[in-house]
Amino acid sequence: MTNPQPIALVTTGGTIDKIYSLTGDLEIGEPAALEILSVVRPTVPVTAEPVLRKDSLDITDDDRQTLFERVEALPNTRVVITHGTDTMTDTAEYLRTHGTALADKTIVFTGAMQPASLRVTDSQFNLGTAFAAVQLLDPGIYLAMSGRVFPVGAVVKDRDRGQFVDLVVPEN
Amino acid sequence: MTNPQPIALVTTGGTIDKIYSLTGDLEIGEPAALEILSVVRPTVPVTAEPVLRKDSLDITDDDRQTLFERVEALPNTRVVITHGTDTMTDTAEYLRTHGTALADKTIVFTGAMQPASLRVTDSQFNLGTAFAAVQLLDPGIYLAMSGRVFPVGAVVKDRDRGQFVDLVVPEN
Amino acid sequence: MTNPQPIALVTTGGTIDKIYSLTGDLEIGEPAALEILSVVRPTVPVTAEPVLRKDSLDITDDDRQTLFERVEALPNTRVVITHGTDTMTDTAEYLRTHGTALADKTIVFTGAMQPASLRVTDSQFNLGTAFAAVQLLDPGIYLAMSGRVFPVGAVVKDRDRGQFVDLVVPEN
Amino acid sequence: MTNPQPIALVTTGGTIDKIYSLTGDLEIGEPAALEILSVVRPTVPVTAEPVLRKDSLDITDDDRQTLFERVEALPNTRVVITHGTDTMTDTAEYLRTHGTALADKTIVFTGAMQPASLRVTDSQFNLGTAFAAVQLLDPGIYLAMSGRVFPVGAVVKDRDRGQFVDLVVPEN
Repeated sequence: MTNPQPIALVTTGGTIDKIYSLTGDLEIGEPAALEILSVVRPTVPVTAEPVLRKDSLDITDDDRQTLFERVEALPNTRVVITHGTDTMTDTAEYLRTHGTALADKTIVFTGAMQPASLRVTDSQFNLGTAFAAVQLLDPGIYLAMSGRVFPVGAVVKDRDRGQFVDLVVPEN
Repeated sequence: MTNPQPIALVTTGGTIDKIYSLTGDLEIGEPAALEILSVVRPTVPVTAEPVLRKDSLDITDDDRQTLFERVEALPNTRVVITHGTDTMTDTAEYLRTHGTALADKTIVFTGAMQPASLRVTDSQFNLGTAFAAVQLLDPGIYLAMSGRVFPVGAVVKDRDRGQFVDLVVPEN
Repeated sequence: MTNPQPIALVTTGGTIDKIYSLTGDLEIGEPAALEILSVVRPTVPVTAEPVLRKDSLDITDDDRQTLFERVEALPNTRVVITHGTDTMTDTAEYLRTHGTALADKTIVFTGAMQPASLRVTDSQFNLGTAFAAVQLLDPGIYLAMSGRVFPVGAVVKDRDRGQFVDLVVPEN
Repeated sequence: MTNPQPIALVTTGGTIDKIYSLTGDLEIGEPAALEILSVVRPTVPVTAEPVLRKDSLDITDDDRQTLFERVEALPNTRVVITHGTDTMTDTAEYLRTHGTALADKTIVFTGAMQPASLRVTDSQFNLGTAFAAVQLLDPGIYLAMSGRVFPVGAVVKDRDRGQFVDLVVPEN
């Protein structure tokens, strides 16, 4: 069923990694996913690949190209990417449109609406959905958010509600 | 991909639900999965079905029959069951061997090595893996633990390490 | 020793009350001290007096006058005030210089360097120091921060270190 | 006011230090007070003195004698002792009746009704009350629990409510 092929955990920053600084600002801290996994102690091999450390509103297409090249260079066919929620669909779309070289990989984006540093947060749950999805799905690019797993292109963030939902394409 | 069919969340107690009582003992509290989901706010419908409230070492075959009947009666084809880890494989096996009536359902067991009431716990992550698995897998009975998703019969708890691993059947 | 005279808990916002909004910003939430006390269940009566809901950098002298009047009007002789750390000494000083009417009250300011909504925070500890101080000290105005209790006028926030220390007045 | 004389933190185990083991039992872990203080970063010197690591129901008079001797040997005049709640008053009483040698020390016992390893706990708040009390009070032996500071001999644990209250001595 779940062949325990090694998973690459690629981190880019985003809300999941936000911490509160001594100066009263939010900043991007160490990748929270690593601390979460140290608690879960998965029995599938995981390697960490920190690539960016940014609020996703600040991620540029140059950053996306860097991410693309780093993911392409990974030997893994299973890749979980933690990313800020505001442009998660944009980065996923970038990988899809630039990424025939990624065609043999299952890539699952996830993140959080509330930082992992909070007492109450969706970070751990979301990372869990991404870990199951990356092991169960065929190659492709997906988003694991709001308790669901969406294929790239079929999902949108409802900013008012802070939830990821199906992208409904209006019919003509 | 992930057709948002309603998920039934069946709770039975176990470590995930343990709380610390005023008398200094551990007891089974309210289903932790409900509080976790209230934070995640999934965009797939979920209904809660509390069935048992027991340490899994105390679960009997009568309890398992009750669980079987309750799951069978559910209209849902997607069922997540939170359960103590010590006999999770036993209960899953019971459902498999007694359950041709469950043949159209995807049933995913999960739980935790550390109670959800703790500051540091695997509860949220594990529930996340179960939620993805129940939406992505064909009918059958599975365990989502230790960052993986195992089919019933192919998994065992390594009690010394507190981890779920592949059940290795020795060859003759 | 600790005469259980009723304590008034006056809240003004500040880091202790900061929460993470769905839009990715920090905002001032409900008074965290109330939730903390609901866990501690003190055996001394406490009444809550929410007065302001502001980052302390935004607190004006008009706000301080409002706070002064509200504290003066309280029947309590023991008052704990939660407040942002950046101008906590300013507000304490304002009460001291405007407040002969407060001369019979023991007033203890406290707050936090890390919001109470975080998994790891100084909020609960600091509130505890304030609760002990307000019950043990003679009338006057104090700050309880960084594990100590300082009289107003003898304390300063070291912004680089995020700690409250003795105000050292250089000799001539 | 609060002369920053060094505080000795003496730890003995108890609920505050309880953790959940892989075998599903509660056990006494590392002193939680040290981790709490690492977050608060007090600007008063603190040294740690781990003496016992026991549930307070298991603490014997031999243990209490050991504790007495260790506290007596400390150079500090300010001592905070973390201790299980069930026999905290007994140990405090033991120190009082055996301890003229402790007459120059301010000793404050504290602990928790809920382990510090929990997401929701009174541990941090209680340690805060003890830290303020030990710096503000004259020599003597005290308990800081339930939001108050009691002198030894004037306090009792109400086991049904899980709270510390005034010991009421019936009049004749």
